[in-house]
Amino acid sequence: MTNLAETDRSIRDVILELIEAGDSGELSSRTSEMHSADIAEILNWLEEPEQKLFLYRLLDVEVASDVLADVSEATREILLENLRDEQVAEVIEHLDTDDATDVVADLPEERQETVLHQADPEIRKEVEDLLHYPEDTAGGIMKKEIAAVMVGATVSETVEYIRSRAEIFHDIHNVFVIDHSGHLKGLVSLRRLLLAEPGTQIAAIMDEDFVSVRVDVDQEETAHLFEKYDLLSMPVVDSLGRLVGRITVDDIVDVIAEEATEDILALGGLGSEAAQPVTAGSAIRARFPWLGLNLLTAAAGTLTVALFESTIRNLAIAAALMNIVVIQGGNAGIQTMTLVVRGLALGEVESRDAMRILGRECLTALGNGLLLGMISAVFVYFWKANLALSLVLGSSLLINLLVAATLGSLVPLTLKALRVDPAVSSTVLVTAGTDILGFFIFLGLLTLAI
Amino acid sequence: MTNLAETDRSIRDVILELIEAGDSGELSSRTSEMHSADIAEILNWLEEPEQKLFLYRLLDVEVASDVLADVSEATREILLENLRDEQVAEVIEHLDTDDATDVVADLPEERQETVLHQADPEIRKEVEDLLHYPEDTAGGIMKKEIAAVMVGATVSETVEYIRSRAEIFHDIHNVFVIDHSGHLKGLVSLRRLLLAEPGTQIAAIMDEDFVSVRVDVDQEETAHLFEKYDLLSMPVVDSLGRLVGRITVDDIVDVIAEEATEDILALGGLGSEAAQPVTAGSAIRARFPWLGLNLLTAAAGTLTVALFESTIRNLAIAAALMNIVVIQGGNAGIQTMTLVVRGLALGEVESRDAMRILGRECLTALGNGLLLGMISAVFVYFWKANLALSLVLGSSLLINLLVAATLGSLVPLTLKALRVDPAVSSTVLVTAGTDILGFFIFLGLLTLAI
Repeated sequence: MTNLAETDRSIRDVILELIEAGDSGELSSRTSEMHSADIAEILNWLEEPEQKLFLYRLLDVEVASDVLADVSEATREILLENLRDEQVAEVIEHLDTDDATDVVADLPEERQETVLHQADPEIRKEVEDLLHYPEDTAGGIMKKEIAAVMVGATVSETVEYIRSRAEIFHDIHNVFVIDHSGHLKGLVSLRRLLLAEPGTQIAAIMDEDFVSVRVDVDQEETAHLFEKYDLLSMPVVDSLGRLVGRITVDDIVDVIAEEATEDILALGGLGSEAAQPVTAGSAIRARFPWLGLNLLTAAAGTLTVALFESTIRNLAIAAALMNIVVIQGGNAGIQTMTLVVRGLALGEVESRDAMRILGRECLTALGNGLLLGMISAVFVYFWKANLALSLVLGSSLLINLLVAATLGSLVPLTLKALRVDPAVSSTVLVTAGTDILGFFIFLGLLTLAI
Repeated sequence: MTNLAETDRSIRDVILELIEAGDSGELSSRTSEMHSADIAEILNWLEEPEQKLFLYRLLDVEVASDVLADVSEATREILLENLRDEQVAEVIEHLDTDDATDVVADLPEERQETVLHQADPEIRKEVEDLLHYPEDTAGGIMKKEIAAVMVGATVSETVEYIRSRAEIFHDIHNVFVIDHSGHLKGLVSLRRLLLAEPGTQIAAIMDEDFVSVRVDVDQEETAHLFEKYDLLSMPVVDSLGRLVGRITVDDIVDVIAEEATEDILALGGLGSEAAQPVTAGSAIRARFPWLGLNLLTAAAGTLTVALFESTIRNLAIAAALMNIVVIQGGNAGIQTMTLVVRGLALGEVESRDAMRILGRECLTALGNGLLLGMISAVFVYFWKANLALSLVLGSSLLINLLVAATLGSLVPLTLKALRVDPAVSSTVLVTAGTDILGFFIFLGLLTLAI
């Protein structure tokens, strides 16, 4: 299809109707004209496993393979459960090694071996090799389909080499140049190959200034390199500098979205286990620890308030007002904390910026605190005609905003300096601080004032 | 440089020393061996404008141009302020049109015209054209350097065409095929060109199934197309289907990171204006509205508590305990809300999933609520030996968690259905709901119980 090739709602409904009607012929005809990514989207959208399977079984093995690599984990699980081992092996033979490895990795361990035994021995060896790398490293993302020629090759020999393996090299942008030990010496873009004279030595036109990454480098760091140097693909080397694979930018695009999701959920109080709730049971198990921890910090707040029980007995309305100080502090604290955590993740903020950030945030808190403090004080005065109460509320609000600014700035920076991921833990600490201190400041000042 | 080409801390410190010592010669020599992205990183890191300028002025115009396009907005502003119009014009002539447009767009409007007048007329025309498109659309991201041949061309003619403009086409991956009205008919990858016989007609090897985007499409949607179809570049067409530019994946990588940052900050209560705090003054102006809104919702919570003033007067410890119900509700609500908002952003969640999500979240809330409710009830009983109080606390906690699950699920979905961006507004609504209802439920039940 051309132009804005997004899956129309209408197409999805038509496909669903055809599935319900069992019209294989029309379905096959329709899907043969669709991009595998669109078919994958529809498979994700279909609700019943039988519907997914009915559609999937009609696909040519080439398309089916791309689709299997593209669907969501949940859908892939359903499909894999209903495919025989030989069928999965056939899919793996049609995929690039990075996608093949992802599919195999999704199988239960016992099944991985049996499936791989049915696959082509060469492909099996490559996938088994890739499976050894942790998922979130360069080795875990890379593919083994690499176009590499020896240093002594000519341009025409290189072109012939690519031509002979045109299918395997369907998505290359560079040819890598290696020596006889497999060490990466340089790379040549297809563009340069296209424009060079056939007899030219590859070594004469290769780029020796290139960016590569070691197999064990973290995926987030790898993504950062792609972003920084505007790369489309990057060679992966082992600890001896030998070429072992390459990573293409489309996989990096997925990594970036993944890492962003991880951070967003962490800031919302969902650690990695809690991020993919499939059933209520797993969600309870995953979220309970965090809520339990929050119960403890809430209890600390309760104990703080309990210290001032007599004050509240004397002026019960204080119980209604302390809420304002605490909530505003929490909100402002989260604002600051979110800025700092994201800045740290993007590499735009470093520990040396601590004082500057703290200064700016405290000034901001001062400004907002004075404004909000005055507004609340005025309203409380008109509501309860109690000057002491109004002043205490206004000033507590201001002070707690300063506390919030301080905690929001320093907590993430400190956690980062202690090599703890700031995204998950900052929220708990910052809100615990603004709650407990908010109560203490307000009720404390009130107790002194009356 | 090769391998993990990140900017070492040591290199940064060396560069800083050389700047402080005024050693232009050594600095020039060092920077001539560095990638422009690394120089840009150092320029961002340097703190004093004079330091940035000293380093920048030593760079060759080619490198200086790439660096200017790569530095942060803050650093670019400093550099642009200190460059003469002719110098900026020269930079623009060395950049691809998308980067050139970004640089010009960063100039104050009055200066944009004067600078463009000093630039090459052809480049000026292209940049002026690109400036018309809103920044966050396909037109705002695209570049005008497009390799396009007519339908009747041969492979060898195409190669010659690329060769003749090798510099301009330094980063192409495809050649576009157009008809005489400029309509996009197909595209040919460099790989296919490389492997084809010179006399072959372009039209015979071109890919007619391609993805393109219209100039006015949102950048987020454009990024989604890149992600979905694993694209490296995409042609941009006008409303008549005529080729007007192309977008390369490196710009999309930046868009994805940008959009993620926007969402993260929005969930933390920072709207787009509040996201880039340069000075405390701008931060105050940007954040005050949101904090002001939160003050109103906090006031609503206060009024809710005030309804039960007499209850609190009778049992002051209630003021300490209501905190637990409200805070747990807020946390759980944010957990659910974050999941749903992110799911909506990724296109993994749609309105039809509402009931399923609500069901799962309520079941989770039931599970967690029973556990946490029992734990808190037991502790309160041991603390205050008041059975009614313990039972009220435990059950309020459970009920408020159910409220949180409901709000966290339905608020983002409803906002999305009303075409309001759920990221910004959900937090306020969900926490306001769990606060007000938390107070009401706990104090209400307590009032009934005693």
